Amino acid sequence: MAVPSPQVLVDGVAEGGIPAHDRGFAYGDGVFRTIRVDQGRLWLWPDHLAKLTSDARKLGLPLQAADHALLENEARQLTDRASGTLRLVLTRGSGPRGDRPPRPAALRRVLLFYPGATPVIPSAVRSLRLCRTRLPRLPELAGVKHLNRLPQVLARQEWPGPEPDEGLLLDADDSIVCGTMSNLFLRHGNRILTPPLEHSGVAGVVRERLLTGRIPGMEILKTTVTTAQIGVDTLLAADEVWLTNAVVGIWPVASLKDSEGRELAGWEAPGPVTTALAVGLVRLLESA
Amino acid sequence: MAVPSPQVLVDGVAEGGIPAHDRGFAYGDGVFRTIRVDQGRLWLWPDHLAKLTSDARKLGLPLQAADHALLENEARQLTDRASGTLRLVLTRGSGPRGDRPPRPAALRRVLLFYPGATPVIPSAVRSLRLCRTRLPRLPELAGVKHLNRLPQVLARQEWPGPEPDEGLLLDADDSIVCGTMSNLFLRHGNRILTPPLEHSGVAGVVRERLLTGRIPGMEILKTTVTTAQIGVDTLLAADEVWLTNAVVGIWPVASLKDSEGRELAGWEAPGPVTTALAVGLVRLLESA
Repeated sequence: MAVPSPQVLVDGVAEGGIPAHDRGFAYGDGVFRTIRVDQGRLWLWPDHLAKLTSDARKLGLPLQAADHALLENEARQLTDRASGTLRLVLTRGSGPRGDRPPRPAALRRVLLFYPGATPVIPSAVRSLRLCRTRLPRLPELAGVKHLNRLPQVLARQEWPGPEPDEGLLLDADDSIVCGTMSNLFLRHGNRILTPPLEHSGVAGVVRERLLTGRIPGMEILKTTVTTAQIGVDTLLAADEVWLTNAVVGIWPVASLKDSEGRELAGWEAPGPVTTALAVGLVRLLESA
Repeated sequence: MAVPSPQVLVDGVAEGGIPAHDRGFAYGDGVFRTIRVDQGRLWLWPDHLAKLTSDARKLGLPLQAADHALLENEARQLTDRASGTLRLVLTRGSGPRGDRPPRPAALRRVLLFYPGATPVIPSAVRSLRLCRTRLPRLPELAGVKHLNRLPQVLARQEWPGPEPDEGLLLDADDSIVCGTMSNLFLRHGNRILTPPLEHSGVAGVVRERLLTGRIPGMEILKTTVTTAQIGVDTLLAADEVWLTNAVVGIWPVASLKDSEGRELAGWEAPGPVTTALAVGLVRLLESA
């Protein structure tokens, strides 16, 4: 089976390969971002760079301020004026054998560009599917988008091929954490809630925008977003549900299914807040 | 800093690189073995192959029986008659963007050989150091030696550079799981215990040999090895402690330190059972 190859820059070298002793390959010792690109514009670039910096610091990767311009230049060189999705990976570079990080370590930059039409905002509605796989707790790296993704891989294997559901991941204490590639939000009346991600999960840049009220027009909702432990019962009682993701922006959620695919609940989708947020995200996109 | 490069075979190609869209690099979607090589002899090769097969199955990697001879041929080609350490990695190959595994997937074989003297058995004594990092629970992959190694990387960063301690990892319930690169055994009187690895941890091939009594001369110990939940109190009360690892065989443990490096307990090392097992492991080595 031929898998289409993305366009690649490895430490600035076109079509480069990753050395087999790169620590990203050996241990998943790295962080990444997935960036929406519209005709060369890198959506939410400052947000991605800030999160990359924060994530790299939590892992102890030697990302310097001087690397920021380099990363932006390489991203613009690779994407040119095209539309698609950019994956930006930073690893702790090549290391000797063994888990212990080399000091000093040399950062490795790996950019992959997948050309193709970018999804409209809001994207088509999704169903949520409760996964049997539980996200493991690693509080030191909670929220970090790192390369240890086997829990998400296992979760995504739970249902067949192209079905466009999104898997919903709980932790061992039955608290909802996030989707396999998205963050969850729900509305109860005038309150908007999202899980706190203190023990596990990935904190996306659109989630951060919602939490800090930095989406155009969001003020007219006259509500704030708060973090809260959310169990399945709380989700079932929601008035409106949506997912956020840095490539698709926002997914209205129409239903919740159990791990066998049986529907547990349904919602009107997109709901009013989802629609208002989608309008704001489109304005963000146009101003990028 | 120049990191010495190992000798590499990627899908049979010498000095090949890993494609940036390999799933091992993108998600840690793969398994590996670390193999001791003495003058071209691959120590415990059948054990490694059996464990690789079992681990690959748990991840759903398409390792076929026909791949076994291929892997052995490549391992022999790469190591020739040298001594050193062989790292053998299998990934789910190249995939499109997204966590969902491609079907069918194509296995990728990556072999890295680090030439150099192999350690004597038993190796020099080690101190154990209690790590603050707790191993996350992912029961689906408990025991599997996979590429999601960030917990071990974080643990190994807790103490400075070349100090030859081994980090001891507990889970969130204060049960001891394993070392960052070894399995733990302890003796209480005539009983030998090791953690069960039901929720997390890596099950090594030497541990498996001990559990199944397949070490030459082990029968004269007139004891069996059993799995048991082990807390720090149980460890402190042990008469003898050792670690196993597929490269060094067995490490006598002389002391336990807390996460600040303060000594909590000490043992005579090597103790009598450690010595008897080391003799058996050397016999295994000579018969390989």
